[in-house]
Amino acid sequence: MDILFQKLQGAGNDFIIIKYEDFPHDELFPNLAQSVCNRNFGIGADGLMVVKSSNVGDFFMLYFNSDGSKAKMCGNGLRCFTKYIYDNKLTDKRNLTIETLAGLLDVEVKENNGKAYKVKVNMGKMIFDPKQIPVACLDDKCINQTLEVDDVKFEFSTVLMGVPHTVIFLDELDLDTVKKVGPIIEKNKIFPENTNVNFAKIISRNKIEVKTWERGAGYTLACGTGVTSVCGVANFLDLVDNEVEVITDGGKLVITVEGNEDIYMEGPAQEICKGVYFYVNN
Amino acid sequence: MDILFQKLQGAGNDFIIIKYEDFPHDELFPNLAQSVCNRNFGIGADGLMVVKSSNVGDFFMLYFNSDGSKAKMCGNGLRCFTKYIYDNKLTDKRNLTIETLAGLLDVEVKENNGKAYKVKVNMGKMIFDPKQIPVACLDDKCINQTLEVDDVKFEFSTVLMGVPHTVIFLDELDLDTVKKVGPIIEKNKIFPENTNVNFAKIISRNKIEVKTWERGAGYTLACGTGVTSVCGVANFLDLVDNEVEVITDGGKLVITVEGNEDIYMEGPAQEICKGVYFYVNN
Repeated sequence: MDILFQKLQGAGNDFIIIKYEDFPHDELFPNLAQSVCNRNFGIGADGLMVVKSSNVGDFFMLYFNSDGSKAKMCGNGLRCFTKYIYDNKLTDKRNLTIETLAGLLDVEVKENNGKAYKVKVNMGKMIFDPKQIPVACLDDKCINQTLEVDDVKFEFSTVLMGVPHTVIFLDELDLDTVKKVGPIIEKNKIFPENTNVNFAKIISRNKIEVKTWERGAGYTLACGTGVTSVCGVANFLDLVDNEVEVITDGGKLVITVEGNEDIYMEGPAQEICKGVYFYVNN
Repeated sequence: MDILFQKLQGAGNDFIIIKYEDFPHDELFPNLAQSVCNRNFGIGADGLMVVKSSNVGDFFMLYFNSDGSKAKMCGNGLRCFTKYIYDNKLTDKRNLTIETLAGLLDVEVKENNGKAYKVKVNMGKMIFDPKQIPVACLDDKCINQTLEVDDVKFEFSTVLMGVPHTVIFLDELDLDTVKKVGPIIEKNKIFPENTNVNFAKIISRNKIEVKTWERGAGYTLACGTGVTSVCGVANFLDLVDNEVEVITDGGKLVITVEGNEDIYMEGPAQEICKGVYFYVNN
């Protein structure tokens, strides 16, 4: 089957985006996501997004990880999704409400020559309630807890930012630790729905470096909800100010905690290519 | 700049193919290869191929690795290149001669409903002369030599199959060894132009498993000239028969050594997508 697609990236997190009306086959989306996201046998991407109509928002964002599992939300994905909608003139509004499985999210297009070059996303409020995250934790917030991986103790905090995010502050970040410890914590039994794992180094009160191990996707160059969670937790612990620049392996994002505790993420989104994908349903 | 492209794969080795007349900018090809082959910021591929006209063959295949360096030849690439030419009706011939930087190569299209589903490539003869490969070796053939990596001795043979290929037979293959030992041997000082490194396990006289570390590209799922070299060397050492099925992480290829010592490789080629790449020359 021939499917019209576009590939976009935001902070090195890359996505295939299609319109629901071009391929209205819900039952095939998990398989399609695995096929199209495969980096050698498919186009290659971190995730597949499907643009659907919404009864309560301007559009509905359906998101699938590269392993075919559904994700409720993806911050970098939402910026790319918004650029796709705006640049393809599916709307001329610059302030939009996008429905996701994690709820309604407000986005703002920063426009240049009719194209979105940056998108600011209201990521909403962090949720601390262990039951909602979900995480097995007896305290009312899962903050500064400890777990052990291969006899090494890690202090961690876990919040819900659309999806469950565990945050671990370290003095030094290295990719080997992320790839070794990430998948073990991801599937630790205290997280009944598994968890994303963010390793962060605080450089100053306005700058943090983050490397994320994504649930269902593995290490990616940047994770929007991940960096948002890191800054939210760091802000909650008074380790940083309200506006923080985040350095990821895919580029820079700016996270702002506003007065009402809503957290905003602003960053780039770029179109890489568009065309027809020749889908073979194996 | 908008560039028309197609992405194809052969045994999991994936390629972006463009026509020279769509982008006649020789000086930009190395940068374009790096951009378009990047798996997060570009479309993602092992290499970029440019279809040019040829004075001595039917077409000229210009090949760039994902790091922007030029390669003389790529076996899996040549199958995809041939499918691109045939499926896009740049010719209706099924027996073609393709000019490469490694010389003229004959290819045969196996056709189904007007499309090439398999391509058989005459890879030519292996060259044993150490000077031509090039490798610093005092014998007249670089066969069953020994080198050391981190105090471990490896028995190796090196031949020229379009590009230099070192072959190492092991009792067991594992990816860690390929990724650790491959890059060290690739740049060993006895190879003045570096070398591809193929690790192979002989399963029977008709079956070999191969994992290749490619010069300039790193580990890839399969390397056509690599598996050809492995079978050629194994045949020369009388370890296998004339027809060998090769198992790679990207799929199966069939290598045949014919009476005149020409080596043929037959395998699949598949179109993944086509469209427009939005090239930004940074």
